[in-house]
Amino acid sequence: MDARRSARSTKQLSLEIACYGVGNIGRSWALAFALRGHRVRIYDRSVDAAAAASRTIGSGLAALARARLVKNPQAVRSRIEVTRDARRALQGAYYVQESVPEDRAIKRAALEEIAACAPKSALIGSSSSTIPGSEFMQITNPGRCMVVHPVNPPHVIRAVELVPTPWTTRQTIARVSDLMVSIGQRPVLLKRELFGFVVNRLQFALVNEALHLIRDGVCDAEAIDVAMRDGLGPRWALYGVFGASHLNAGGGIREYYSKFASTLRAILECLHAGPCVPDAAMTEAIARSLEKGMPVRDVPTHQARRDLRLMKLRRFLTSFDKVEPAG
Amino acid sequence: MDARRSARSTKQLSLEIACYGVGNIGRSWALAFALRGHRVRIYDRSVDAAAAASRTIGSGLAALARARLVKNPQAVRSRIEVTRDARRALQGAYYVQESVPEDRAIKRAALEEIAACAPKSALIGSSSSTIPGSEFMQITNPGRCMVVHPVNPPHVIRAVELVPTPWTTRQTIARVSDLMVSIGQRPVLLKRELFGFVVNRLQFALVNEALHLIRDGVCDAEAIDVAMRDGLGPRWALYGVFGASHLNAGGGIREYYSKFASTLRAILECLHAGPCVPDAAMTEAIARSLEKGMPVRDVPTHQARRDLRLMKLRRFLTSFDKVEPAG
Repeated sequence: MDARRSARSTKQLSLEIACYGVGNIGRSWALAFALRGHRVRIYDRSVDAAAAASRTIGSGLAALARARLVKNPQAVRSRIEVTRDARRALQGAYYVQESVPEDRAIKRAALEEIAACAPKSALIGSSSSTIPGSEFMQITNPGRCMVVHPVNPPHVIRAVELVPTPWTTRQTIARVSDLMVSIGQRPVLLKRELFGFVVNRLQFALVNEALHLIRDGVCDAEAIDVAMRDGLGPRWALYGVFGASHLNAGGGIREYYSKFASTLRAILECLHAGPCVPDAAMTEAIARSLEKGMPVRDVPTHQARRDLRLMKLRRFLTSFDKVEPAG
Repeated sequence: MDARRSARSTKQLSLEIACYGVGNIGRSWALAFALRGHRVRIYDRSVDAAAAASRTIGSGLAALARARLVKNPQAVRSRIEVTRDARRALQGAYYVQESVPEDRAIKRAALEEIAACAPKSALIGSSSSTIPGSEFMQITNPGRCMVVHPVNPPHVIRAVELVPTPWTTRQTIARVSDLMVSIGQRPVLLKRELFGFVVNRLQFALVNEALHLIRDGVCDAEAIDVAMRDGLGPRWALYGVFGASHLNAGGGIREYYSKFASTLRAILECLHAGPCVPDAAMTEAIARSLEKGMPVRDVPTHQARRDLRLMKLRRFLTSFDKVEPAG
């Protein structure tokens, strides 16, 4: 199908999608597209990665089916083809999702191969989680490229960052955004590029403070995760950070910020400055505490369980969307 | 009952609890205790606050009952007494939860009245959300005092920060912790005091970065909240921040930190430094965007709905705890 026709009119159509590079992220993208009816060709040059993709997609679908979260796993599986032939994966693609490792040179090489093998009109999204697209997207017809950064794993988590380069066209933004909406994603559109984008900057601003607190001996990683799991996480999953503040005062966020202004300033002024990257001893302490509940040998089992839980949680939270707005 | 007997042996008992000061937080604390069988006397010197407390607790319980989240709202309500007589509220209390405004002088005066009216052995927790207890807890027998900071609203959110002062006894920490566990809370124990404690430092480290991104024109508040609600929130509500990272690599958090070390450092180095307190124009823009979905006149309705949703979400997430650990 021609990318010049907007996906807006094709939400119910089955489009040809290529997933280029299949680590954890690429595999999950493939599922995200196939679950919503698109036909996916997965490419990875590595024999191991291709085999792992086939295996993991199969077992992931089986688990979703057992949990009755997918009706017809065979039909979904039949829409996914794994290949080690880049040309075969890319030919005729409406959209290409690149998910190679986070490295400028590797991404540049991937984009060149994509440009060489995919239709000249194919839309191209990169799963880059931090590097702005303008640093590796200088290919033929660059207006059709942008960063499309998922929150892992994208087949069960809805938010996706859309980060146009300075030369991405408005049409590309609209089409990619429509495509994402068609597979159930919720776009977070950035108005300009910056390193780390939004999701990872938010995430690591919090993690940095957490690591400082642990290093200073204020609390341990377990305490941080209780605070997140049983405290801030549920509020944010329901309302986001600003929405939660809006409901923290009878007069909404205006009252909240005005009542709380001096405290807010005092907290912001005493936050730790500068990066706290965990050294070996700190990583070891955090790892040991996590391994009490999730030993490293069981991580793959827990990853599969996480995907199911996230999908159930997504359905649970979506059920609230159906409630009529108040007033 | 004598506070020198540990609550460890009294988890099923009905204890005498005093809630001193009843804004949003105090009212929610009263419900948290009464829902788990304790007898609560609420004190507020303000006629309006006392009346509002009665009203809000009644309507909150009715909503919980309609949603079948409370079996016998009348029994819960009968365990709560609202009074404008401090002496009556505090006499015979096993535990006093102070929730007056976040101001050192107001808290100091409250603590003095509590010390004067409550039993000498009564345990005292302050809902202080940022100010260390040692700055206002210099009363008779100060070893029985500590900060017990809830995540709002505590009757539906489980995490609670326990922040001992330098003179809080081990016995006090153990008894207050047991009491919190007895009402379904999950303690986040700090090893030492610091301004903002853990929850608000984590929260506002993230919010500060978000505000910088909005001020810099990278995205708007709505985009931030999509990223939180549909991206980071669900992962953190299920696994916490470190737990989520542990499941982001097949080899757990050791592999995650080693693979991701240079990117992590690069992100941490480019986070915004310094406080970004929203000015009037910025607050207005954020408020207007929030009011599309939640007009300020409907905030009380949405607060009541939030409490129900959070309680349902808590039950939903708790259902996962029953799954046997893997391996």
